[in-house]
Amino acid sequence: MRAMTVEPGRAGSFDVREVPDPSPGEGDLVVRGLAVGICGTDTEIVAGMYGSAPPGHEHLVIGHESLGLVLHAPAGSAVRRGDLVAGVVRRPDPEPCLACAHGEFDMCRNGRYTEHGIKELDGFGSERWCVQAGDVVVLDSVLEEVGMLVEPASVVAKAWEQIERIGSRSWFEPRSVLVAGAGPIGLLAALLGVQRGLDVHVLDVAEHGAKPDAVAALGARYHHDGLEAAAEVARPDVVIEATGVSDLAFGAMSATAAFGIVCLTGVYPPGRRVSVEAGSHYREMVLENDVMFGSVNANRRHYESAARALAEADLDWLARLITRRVPLSAAAKALDRGADDIKVVVDLV
Amino acid sequence: MRAMTVEPGRAGSFDVREVPDPSPGEGDLVVRGLAVGICGTDTEIVAGMYGSAPPGHEHLVIGHESLGLVLHAPAGSAVRRGDLVAGVVRRPDPEPCLACAHGEFDMCRNGRYTEHGIKELDGFGSERWCVQAGDVVVLDSVLEEVGMLVEPASVVAKAWEQIERIGSRSWFEPRSVLVAGAGPIGLLAALLGVQRGLDVHVLDVAEHGAKPDAVAALGARYHHDGLEAAAEVARPDVVIEATGVSDLAFGAMSATAAFGIVCLTGVYPPGRRVSVEAGSHYREMVLENDVMFGSVNANRRHYESAARALAEADLDWLARLITRRVPLSAAAKALDRGADDIKVVVDLV
Repeated sequence: MRAMTVEPGRAGSFDVREVPDPSPGEGDLVVRGLAVGICGTDTEIVAGMYGSAPPGHEHLVIGHESLGLVLHAPAGSAVRRGDLVAGVVRRPDPEPCLACAHGEFDMCRNGRYTEHGIKELDGFGSERWCVQAGDVVVLDSVLEEVGMLVEPASVVAKAWEQIERIGSRSWFEPRSVLVAGAGPIGLLAALLGVQRGLDVHVLDVAEHGAKPDAVAALGARYHHDGLEAAAEVARPDVVIEATGVSDLAFGAMSATAAFGIVCLTGVYPPGRRVSVEAGSHYREMVLENDVMFGSVNANRRHYESAARALAEADLDWLARLITRRVPLSAAAKALDRGADDIKVVVDLV
Repeated sequence: MRAMTVEPGRAGSFDVREVPDPSPGEGDLVVRGLAVGICGTDTEIVAGMYGSAPPGHEHLVIGHESLGLVLHAPAGSAVRRGDLVAGVVRRPDPEPCLACAHGEFDMCRNGRYTEHGIKELDGFGSERWCVQAGDVVVLDSVLEEVGMLVEPASVVAKAWEQIERIGSRSWFEPRSVLVAGAGPIGLLAALLGVQRGLDVHVLDVAEHGAKPDAVAALGARYHHDGLEAAAEVARPDVVIEATGVSDLAFGAMSATAAFGIVCLTGVYPPGRRVSVEAGSHYREMVLENDVMFGSVNANRRHYESAARALAEADLDWLARLITRRVPLSAAAKALDRGADDIKVVVDLV
């Protein structure tokens, strides 16, 4: 079969290659890969900055935003042949930390987890893949074109769950959310905000194109005149930072009202020095009882929550988030994101 | 009667003056003031930087860390003559915001509250004071010498409650806490950490004296060699920043393990610019699911929780936090904190 592979750590090693078909272990599903979405982590892996191959292997199959069709399911499993599924990316260590032992492997304390397509486990960017039946979520069949959005949506479902759990430490009835960044994470965060009945604002830089259009089609308000101007209008109770720009992460705190919550979801590039007025920043955090927190990854319940949220969404709106689809044979083209691209998908069939 | 007063906004206006005895309104307690503790907010008010008098008044009676003895309680009240009490500092607006309406006036959303001794309400630094029976907490009589610590302890009880509520958003069994600052807030935070069975570390700058001694007497570990060295030993799940130094607030985040929680309690002076490596800072917050939050003030349940915590503490240990007591006639001397002072108290009788 063909698969998207890299030699981790070696830039320029990306290739679509013939690899042996996976051989299912006991309890494994056999899944036909339908599509994978490409994200910034894939780009970092392809650039040789990140990722590791399974022990003893030279290559890593990449792709972690998966969509597949079950070809074979073990007897007695809750998954059935013909089910549409998305794979759960992270697997806890066989000797789990206590957070992992409680199913909260997104909050792993010791870093000894593996991740499909990222860290020591082959990913889903191949024509066939095998995982344990417990390591997929079954999707509503309406998601057959867009189900690879479940993984990024799971990151957002976790972020929203954490916002709500942190917020409920006291009286909390948020009205307005400002999302910084109209990429896939930002737009899916905006979708979940609209589904919660909130007044949703999205900030990005483009004046025209797919991103402002997607925000408008969601019934949210688009801003492209900077954080301060957007915050002036939105007066957000919650800010979700999804640009990965650390200046915005810093500025987001003063964009909130009292009892503000800033959720950081970007993977900020290290090395960015900024001069900040830290005294006022932290003074305001204290006097307003503000919270800033980082959120990464997702556990099983977040995938399930994401799959439900997408199944309830406008499918045409979800489809417009996928601005390009390329066949597996041209997968390298998916790795170069255009300025107007939201999500680029590699079709595996 | 005599009272500690300022003309808000005018530095050098502090005085101990004769003022009319307060006249109790309907439902009011009449309380004999026993003592008030002095804190940084009082110093700011005396310096003319903060505070406002009751509407129509020129002077504000300061003092909000109170201890009093009830001389008269209205019939049917839960408070009785002879009760030892501490006043609750903040009062919600008669037309409360929704947080205040839910009793969470420490999380007030619109800033329209009043505060005894700080904002538009006379404080407790006088020989008599009157408040509604619902605006005090009754203290165990064992606290007759140290009950003015209930107010700062309420700030700490709130901080700990918020740490636990935020932590319980996922699996959370903290083992170690690092408290930065061995002033009253830091030491009371350390006490509540010890009461929770945690491994408690306290960081300050003094090599010898009342602060290191108080930490050792608590059974906690004292550090004076900087945040990084202390964090290396403590490996804290939780950092409580109680110095008001914004560099420490920034550095505290990287001192924590994954799923770290940093609670800021200091009132950081504005105007402090620092150059920070924001990229790595925020990247780590995300990849470790870290939280930083500010906590200020306290509501009624935090005062009650603080009063219980102090009544269960070693009274000799609490007494050593009070490094100086001055009579009301010499109250001005209480406003100058010595390097080795922890809490300075003005005795009102």
